[in-house]
Amino acid sequence: MPKKPALSPASAGPAPVPIYLISPSSAVPPDAPMDASLARMRAAGFEPVLDPGALRTAQRFAGSDAQRAGAFARAAAQPAQAVMITRGGYGLTRLLPSLDFRALARARKAWIGYSDFTAFQLAMLARARAVTWAGPALLDDFATEGDAPADETTVGALHDALAGRLEIVGFRASGPAGVDVRGTLWGGNLTVLCSLIGTPWFPRVKGGILFLEDVGEHPYRIERMLTQLLHAGVLDAQGAVLIGHVNRYRLVERDAGFDMPGVIRRLRTLTKTPIITGLPMGHASPKLTLPHGATVGLATEGRTAYLVLDEHDH
Amino acid sequence: MPKKPALSPASAGPAPVPIYLISPSSAVPPDAPMDASLARMRAAGFEPVLDPGALRTAQRFAGSDAQRAGAFARAAAQPAQAVMITRGGYGLTRLLPSLDFRALARARKAWIGYSDFTAFQLAMLARARAVTWAGPALLDDFATEGDAPADETTVGALHDALAGRLEIVGFRASGPAGVDVRGTLWGGNLTVLCSLIGTPWFPRVKGGILFLEDVGEHPYRIERMLTQLLHAGVLDAQGAVLIGHVNRYRLVERDAGFDMPGVIRRLRTLTKTPIITGLPMGHASPKLTLPHGATVGLATEGRTAYLVLDEHDH
Repeated sequence: MPKKPALSPASAGPAPVPIYLISPSSAVPPDAPMDASLARMRAAGFEPVLDPGALRTAQRFAGSDAQRAGAFARAAAQPAQAVMITRGGYGLTRLLPSLDFRALARARKAWIGYSDFTAFQLAMLARARAVTWAGPALLDDFATEGDAPADETTVGALHDALAGRLEIVGFRASGPAGVDVRGTLWGGNLTVLCSLIGTPWFPRVKGGILFLEDVGEHPYRIERMLTQLLHAGVLDAQGAVLIGHVNRYRLVERDAGFDMPGVIRRLRTLTKTPIITGLPMGHASPKLTLPHGATVGLATEGRTAYLVLDEHDH
Repeated sequence: MPKKPALSPASAGPAPVPIYLISPSSAVPPDAPMDASLARMRAAGFEPVLDPGALRTAQRFAGSDAQRAGAFARAAAQPAQAVMITRGGYGLTRLLPSLDFRALARARKAWIGYSDFTAFQLAMLARARAVTWAGPALLDDFATEGDAPADETTVGALHDALAGRLEIVGFRASGPAGVDVRGTLWGGNLTVLCSLIGTPWFPRVKGGILFLEDVGEHPYRIERMLTQLLHAGVLDAQGAVLIGHVNRYRLVERDAGFDMPGVIRRLRTLTKTPIITGLPMGHASPKLTLPHGATVGLATEGRTAYLVLDEHDH
């Protein structure tokens, strides 16, 4: 390659990081901005490789259950170290009985995603004690408006995570001061997480750092689910709870002041576990890429929370 | 009383049956047709008595948690044998830790309701092995359009239940033929039921007859919840599953044929437990009044299912 100034930022940096893209949940709609998203991923320094089943459709799913389960096996067998979902939606819980989590863990891939993918991440932790990555999805985080590049923080966090450079992450937080705990980082989408309670794919984590996000659920539904976690003893058993984005719901007149801040305030009166809001995770930007199932430290200092990642754990 | 023809049907029949009305969940909205509903209840042969807290409002709830919990104690102490909810909504799971289910069971009231009330009914079964009644709610079943009286079947079933005359109930059903099982009748609103999994208020019923209804939940959400019950071993442990009304959802184009009948068809391939649809229970009319927690028989014959109630059990 001639050493003249590169035309695109990606070609000027280090070699692009290959990411294998699978669709284990809902179908990619025909009008989804796939090409633009793949282009933005390339511009951000990644080399996306589409699984042959990624654009399949069967009813609302990205192919039959068998086809979507097959995507995991193909992802485990191909050379790219990182595997990301194209999108979430619904469909993963249907696959759980047919996935061999220990075999998938042995492939030592960096499985990346969130939302419906939470079911896979919890199952990998419960059945194989495996670390996966809570992080972006192609169509959620690389399908930006117009010509804008993908969010810089999201891209940087993903690069850092995949390069093993993630050591400490700070974010503006709200909650009790002086928190200093260490435990298994786990969680994800609240609705999906609660839908696994009582099943063999719900991990039993004590002293963990539980993170939760959700989208399109009214605060009363969020509260009902948090109440389930409380009454099931899950919240009290954790070292801390981190709340990410809870958004895209609509309050109505008869809520009469009942809202998410109130839900969190009330929850804090019901458990001694510190509850910290502001985690950049969920259906919004920016989004961190965090090691689900790894031991991490969490400390709060003023209005900032720090997640400290253990080198030995991932 | 002079033996001339009565002016209203109610006054011609037996003495009206007193029913004490409580609001343990969402607030009764200011514009709810309370007077018309109470009048229809009277015309149907009941004597409604409003709990003093029934029209309270605190945010979206019918009073504070303590006030709503107090309604149960007041209902247990007053003379009417039957207690019905004015409406469901959300709020009962918040009260569960503060209710003394054994004391409430000792009051030997006929607790009647459904929807959010499912949480109370499951808890009464789990903590006190008590029978409650899955049945109408004032504003759902007596607030009919215009001048129409309350649904005749709903009213008749409620009268029969409260008079101890309920021996056999037949309804048009769909499902496997030749079902003949006997077990604890339990269940209710699917969302509320699933929100208790893992908590001390979820009853562990083996060989039961589990009935489920839901409202305003897309079939993919219904499937996710049924999948949770399947994966938690609940469905396989039952003698039969009865599906009531699942309604007021909206299919969208990307569902591409994914619908409730398909959800049921798929579920039948995943469990050997007979799944029978058509139970008149849920957010629709008519609605049966059934003994939640009692031992009942269930038999199917052609397109009809029969629930046979045990005299000794309620």
